[in-house]
Amino acid sequence: MTMPLPADLQSTLDRIRPIEAAVVAEVQARLNRQAKPQGSLGRLEEFARQYVAITGRKEIRNKVIFTFAGDHGVALEGVSAFPREVTAQMVYNFVSGGAAINALARHAGAEVIVVDMGVDHDFDALDGLLVRKVGRGTANFARGPAMSRAEAIRCLETGIALANSCPAAAIDLVGTGDMGIANTTPSAAIAAAFTGLEPAQVTHRGTGIDDAALARKIEVIRTGLAINRPDPRDPLDVLAKVGGFEIGGIAGLIIGCAAAGIPVVVDGFISTAGALIAAEMHPHIRDYLFAGHQSVEIGHKAMLERLRLQPMLDLQLRLGEGTGAALGMTLIEAALRMLREVRTFDETGVSEGGAH
Amino acid sequence: MTMPLPADLQSTLDRIRPIEAAVVAEVQARLNRQAKPQGSLGRLEEFARQYVAITGRKEIRNKVIFTFAGDHGVALEGVSAFPREVTAQMVYNFVSGGAAINALARHAGAEVIVVDMGVDHDFDALDGLLVRKVGRGTANFARGPAMSRAEAIRCLETGIALANSCPAAAIDLVGTGDMGIANTTPSAAIAAAFTGLEPAQVTHRGTGIDDAALARKIEVIRTGLAINRPDPRDPLDVLAKVGGFEIGGIAGLIIGCAAAGIPVVVDGFISTAGALIAAEMHPHIRDYLFAGHQSVEIGHKAMLERLRLQPMLDLQLRLGEGTGAALGMTLIEAALRMLREVRTFDETGVSEGGAH
Repeated sequence: MTMPLPADLQSTLDRIRPIEAAVVAEVQARLNRQAKPQGSLGRLEEFARQYVAITGRKEIRNKVIFTFAGDHGVALEGVSAFPREVTAQMVYNFVSGGAAINALARHAGAEVIVVDMGVDHDFDALDGLLVRKVGRGTANFARGPAMSRAEAIRCLETGIALANSCPAAAIDLVGTGDMGIANTTPSAAIAAAFTGLEPAQVTHRGTGIDDAALARKIEVIRTGLAINRPDPRDPLDVLAKVGGFEIGGIAGLIIGCAAAGIPVVVDGFISTAGALIAAEMHPHIRDYLFAGHQSVEIGHKAMLERLRLQPMLDLQLRLGEGTGAALGMTLIEAALRMLREVRTFDETGVSEGGAH
Repeated sequence: MTMPLPADLQSTLDRIRPIEAAVVAEVQARLNRQAKPQGSLGRLEEFARQYVAITGRKEIRNKVIFTFAGDHGVALEGVSAFPREVTAQMVYNFVSGGAAINALARHAGAEVIVVDMGVDHDFDALDGLLVRKVGRGTANFARGPAMSRAEAIRCLETGIALANSCPAAAIDLVGTGDMGIANTTPSAAIAAAFTGLEPAQVTHRGTGIDDAALARKIEVIRTGLAINRPDPRDPLDVLAKVGGFEIGGIAGLIIGCAAAGIPVVVDGFISTAGALIAAEMHPHIRDYLFAGHQSVEIGHKAMLERLRLQPMLDLQLRLGEGTGAALGMTLIEAALRMLREVRTFDETGVSEGGAH
């Protein structure tokens, strides 16, 4: 990193530890004693190992999805199929429980907490909404930096503070989500900045733009990267130059959760851009992450590869909000139930295999 | 088909109807009015459309996984890593609630009903076990037919009777599962028989055999197909010659569910062999099927392709029992909750997109 970080942020990063290989081995040993062919529950076994190694727990008490919202100056460039006011409208929809993330979080048994990181709207006090505005939408990164470095730091600190509030609420699993009209544009820019891929290789249709708008979006990203020259060795610089307030909140939440030993299920394209900012700041952050799903967005795969994460699901989702994270949470629940409840060869008297 | 079917079986097949395209369109119209980009919930939308088109319902009352068990004469050829008595031992494990399917069915909120189709063991009366023995294990198909045509018909009729018992119990979603030491061997033979692929292209390690055992298993399947010459235009012939009692039970359950309008989540490799037997008997059976997951077994993909089914999950499972079906059920629950609970643009006042 080219510039020193604020002391608080640095000390949070310094608290992040690799997960315990000994615990991973201990969990796998238990799984291997269960009356089934070794390894036959595949990735469920992986999810169980990772969850227990992070938390030391085999059961989840409370689950929360933090859905971060923010507006984007780059929306002025016509890169989205939806008008900018939809960001605020969807925040109201989340808070009243009518959106897809609400339905899927109820399915997963998770609470939804909406965090206003920078929506261009004044919200009254609302249950389930935390107003943590860093600004009223970013600046248009096709003309200059999306935000200042100080604002980028505030985004991270806001996310870290949310993570720090989790242990007292017995939150053992966190999911990320996003809302922000035009926010696949900064996410694709972040993907390009870290992977070195061309904007056309990581830029897709977002909420459903046509070919002409897609061509414009790619050009906007190319211009934004050329003007701002984000430094991939300095993730804060990338966040500031071509990021978004909600993306920074997600990155901060992930940093804070890794420091606090809380596993995070990362949603799709936008959340993964946030995860990438976080993971580029510390080599062990990825140990704390579950990739909820593979998004339809073409740049998602490249980011997951850079993070060395395999998505849990591939359901052709392209909504965000945290919907893929909610579904991923249910697979971790399934994995832990399997770990807790499947009896061993000794307990059942089932004969072991292995002759062949 | 080369031989006439028994009248009851034929009349069951005759009751199977294609799912209603009008209902599919109606559900999609509702999904398109929900406040999200059109199609953005991807395969969840597909699951909701298909479920509602089959059942006319948007909510599931009861879910059951039928786990069919049977022994296999071909186990004598040393094709499995586990001894034959494990089939019966695992039936006890299922009935006492300690197996992986029990844990994952509890996760999914589904009941498990174990069906003894042909285990080489006498069970006492046990809660959760239906004894429907067609035999005490099949004959070794490397030496002659696995069962008679009459036994194959009894397998289907047994499964159909189970399906017919579902409506009275308000069962709106059925899952399939299997237990039978050596049963990936007949399943691979069925895959080869219908797809025309070489045994080596569809035969894999089952519970975990080594290279030598795998080579032997491929050779056993090649011999079994050469000796028995199952006729792929006559699915009952394939079942009788190289199938298994539990595979026939699964096929019958699927036929019966399609006739009764009950959707079925098909588990992995063995269940899909049963589904293939069923689907080859009537062109609309596949409309009633959800493929729970993509198995590690290399022959699974070819069968799913022949069925034109996309797996819901790919978690590198290779256990069977119904474990992948249980997980698939949870995604249908998620899809229906999404359909029921996500509010429309009109209801929320969220602005619609579409300008670009």
